Amino acid sequence: MKVPQPNAAMLQQLDADGRLQHLINLEGLPRALIERLLNRAQQFIRPLGAPPARSSALAGVTVANLFGEPSTRTRGSFELAARRLGADVINLEVHLSSRSKGETILDTVYTLQSMQIDVLVMREAESGVPGYVARHVAPHVSVLSAGESHLSHPTQGLLDALTIRQCKGGFQKLSVAIVGDVAHSRVARSTFQALNALGVGAVRIVAPPALMPGPEEFSGCERLHSLEQGIRGVDVIMMLRIQKERMSESTVPVGANYFREFGLTYERLRLAKPDAIVMHPGPMNRGVEIDSEIADGPQSVIQQQVTNGVAVRMAVLEAVTEGLRRDWNRA
Amino acid sequence: MKVPQPNAAMLQQLDADGRLQHLINLEGLPRALIERLLNRAQQFIRPLGAPPARSSALAGVTVANLFGEPSTRTRGSFELAARRLGADVINLEVHLSSRSKGETILDTVYTLQSMQIDVLVMREAESGVPGYVARHVAPHVSVLSAGESHLSHPTQGLLDALTIRQCKGGFQKLSVAIVGDVAHSRVARSTFQALNALGVGAVRIVAPPALMPGPEEFSGCERLHSLEQGIRGVDVIMMLRIQKERMSESTVPVGANYFREFGLTYERLRLAKPDAIVMHPGPMNRGVEIDSEIADGPQSVIQQQVTNGVAVRMAVLEAVTEGLRRDWNRA
Amino acid sequence: MKVPQPNAAMLQQLDADGRLQHLINLEGLPRALIERLLNRAQQFIRPLGAPPARSSALAGVTVANLFGEPSTRTRGSFELAARRLGADVINLEVHLSSRSKGETILDTVYTLQSMQIDVLVMREAESGVPGYVARHVAPHVSVLSAGESHLSHPTQGLLDALTIRQCKGGFQKLSVAIVGDVAHSRVARSTFQALNALGVGAVRIVAPPALMPGPEEFSGCERLHSLEQGIRGVDVIMMLRIQKERMSESTVPVGANYFREFGLTYERLRLAKPDAIVMHPGPMNRGVEIDSEIADGPQSVIQQQVTNGVAVRMAVLEAVTEGLRRDWNRA
Repeated sequence: MKVPQPNAAMLQQLDADGRLQHLINLEGLPRALIERLLNRAQQFIRPLGAPPARSSALAGVTVANLFGEPSTRTRGSFELAARRLGADVINLEVHLSSRSKGETILDTVYTLQSMQIDVLVMREAESGVPGYVARHVAPHVSVLSAGESHLSHPTQGLLDALTIRQCKGGFQKLSVAIVGDVAHSRVARSTFQALNALGVGAVRIVAPPALMPGPEEFSGCERLHSLEQGIRGVDVIMMLRIQKERMSESTVPVGANYFREFGLTYERLRLAKPDAIVMHPGPMNRGVEIDSEIADGPQSVIQQQVTNGVAVRMAVLEAVTEGLRRDWNRA
Repeated sequence: MKVPQPNAAMLQQLDADGRLQHLINLEGLPRALIERLLNRAQQFIRPLGAPPARSSALAGVTVANLFGEPSTRTRGSFELAARRLGADVINLEVHLSSRSKGETILDTVYTLQSMQIDVLVMREAESGVPGYVARHVAPHVSVLSAGESHLSHPTQGLLDALTIRQCKGGFQKLSVAIVGDVAHSRVARSTFQALNALGVGAVRIVAPPALMPGPEEFSGCERLHSLEQGIRGVDVIMMLRIQKERMSESTVPVGANYFREFGLTYERLRLAKPDAIVMHPGPMNRGVEIDSEIADGPQSVIQQQVTNGVAVRMAVLEAVTEGLRRDWNRA
Repeated sequence: MKVPQPNAAMLQQLDADGRLQHLINLEGLPRALIERLLNRAQQFIRPLGAPPARSSALAGVTVANLFGEPSTRTRGSFELAARRLGADVINLEVHLSSRSKGETILDTVYTLQSMQIDVLVMREAESGVPGYVARHVAPHVSVLSAGESHLSHPTQGLLDALTIRQCKGGFQKLSVAIVGDVAHSRVARSTFQALNALGVGAVRIVAPPALMPGPEEFSGCERLHSLEQGIRGVDVIMMLRIQKERMSESTVPVGANYFREFGLTYERLRLAKPDAIVMHPGPMNRGVEIDSEIADGPQSVIQQQVTNGVAVRMAVLEAVTEGLRRDWNRA
């Protein structure tokens, strides 16, 4: 079976009333909708050590976490977000890949839907699956991508945007550098799309030649192969995780060599604006893409990103079930 | 250690008051009890997209899901059923097989019981285990089989009966064909027992010779080796999943050959009554035992079976904890 | 990375107000604090078959179970304890070992903390990890060890103490024998520390020479290599699980030979006081370290230990979140 690969722009993530029904991809989402999600997420932020924000907004709603690949961080974040809104959450080790033997993707999805599961949160290594599922579920069911191949990780893009907004107040005048394995990064793509929609000043992508995406993507970005040039004068430095496997490719510097060329050190950090923030989606390879002291230093907002992750997922879960809950209340 | 294999009829699933305490096997269960379970399950049915039925009937009750073999579908169905009744549910990867090293089956069970777990839901590849456990737990603890070897899958039998009743209004005049790997199917056995207890008109079993059960089972059923003859004039066609491993046995047709001989096609479906329904316990092998268009077609009630599965499990959980909850309320 | 190995006495488990913040090790804990935990745990005890004790004391608190090695029994016990107090619980398959690739221990912990997880329950094969984490979490976060290498299993120590107190009324006049693989047993260490703090009369350790701990540990204990001598006249016999791997070491008797030398039989049990109780932390190797009939016999309190395990974990969870909940109520 071949999963059709839709043009992202064709994918209908909004329902007939313009409400968010699925969140697969940030590309093409209206700026006003993204801003509403960030505003709502901001309301769920509490200081560390205070009771987390809770509500019973999703009481009676069932959320299923479908994680084919293990992901403690993102799965836990979605699970906590759903629980703190009062939803029922079940974790299922379901492999939706079209290559899995036995059931087709849609049989699995229809089975879950028939158990009256309302929201499917899915992490998928195979591209096209979340959109394919979204096009086939019943009208009241929502699909949220928790990471799709190298293509999309929309809640990560939103939490990155929220973090930047909290630290910088806005996007218009900002210069943002996305650094590392941009070619293979779903985080880079989704964050770039979020920042673009929010009217960011400028985004630079900084990568060794072998990890630079093709010219058909990241349009309008300056492309640099030198970290020093790439972060000079920027407001935001987003470091990406380098997969160790990538470094076995001949043209990518390995280990300490990678750090020497593309690792974020204090010396290099001084090239950015003095109040530049440093972000990383985690998990970090300390000493490979980022100096350990920077990760723990005053310019790092990495833990704030994690906190924002739960808040953003609460906002998204609330948004995509709004229609469902309205219908329930009417009935 | 050898697990004793009791005569199913000897297994006491009812308590001293005639209430259902365990559900291991449908054989010998009183018709009135099965009908009460179906009636109660029917009350838990809601249209897809409506809020699922919920109650706090099982508040304070603890249900443990013990699934030695992975089963997303059935485990999720039991978990949702228990949660929607307000129970605490924990999922434990416990292997109760007598072959597992370390603890004996009963040590594991007594440990769970001592944690004040009230209901043990178990899927077991080894026959005899659920009944063995049921005979040894404390009087207030219930054991529910979620599938036992090739022998029994009682909640599947009940949900199949409920689906047929919803579609056909009753059982007395019906002709039902169970088709495929009947010999190895716990679903076939439990559904046959349910239909028998409910006074079904006639059940035919349709299988290649190598997959036909022995004559000591499915008594009273007509046995046919031809699918065309088997489904001629029937009201209900229950397709079974064929394990790909089975087809490597010399006498079973393989792959496309299996489909050619035992696959349900539209051409064959016309031999059944015009309003015949098509059932499948899932997961389906589309193109092997069933044509993909039939699975998605108007006569298919496969998704309805899944919805009924949650409702039936709610009814069973409510029934087996009735005595426990009565005692709690008295105290 | 090398995890620093602190002197246990240096580990600060109490906060500035003398309240329990972490539970890593029982060594050096004040007797009054241990007694308060046992008293509170006792209040959570209900007879088997009665509704388990429940409260909403931990409503809004988030507990994460981090079990690198599988442990159905202890993980389930902590999960039920937290749920019955109204906490949100998530289970994460997180490996905190310093040897795991990718993230450092602290990155993982800071990620969880940033999701507003308040209590980290961790089982760790590597020594030093729980204490290391406890020294680095935010002041409102608590770390509970659910078993650390061969060193510590503090809730097991407490539940053993509670069981003995329930059966014997106190500790002062008791003679306790800890029997088996003492050298590798975290249970033996924690229970010994609990009993010591509570003023136990005398503890004997009974092990083959190869499984006897070094003289720097278990100070004040009589050490015996003969089971007959070891249990003569004692009030409490604590059998330990022997790992089958240990018996492949040349100096440890194997299988039936182990049972012949160190297995608890009825004949030997008669050497202890007539009302001696027999304990085992589970899972048992019946026929290796303990005769099956003794495990199920009138002197066995093994199931009572399991019930006490949930109660003790409830008491500990309540205690370590007391400061957090007080701060929440003030705000």
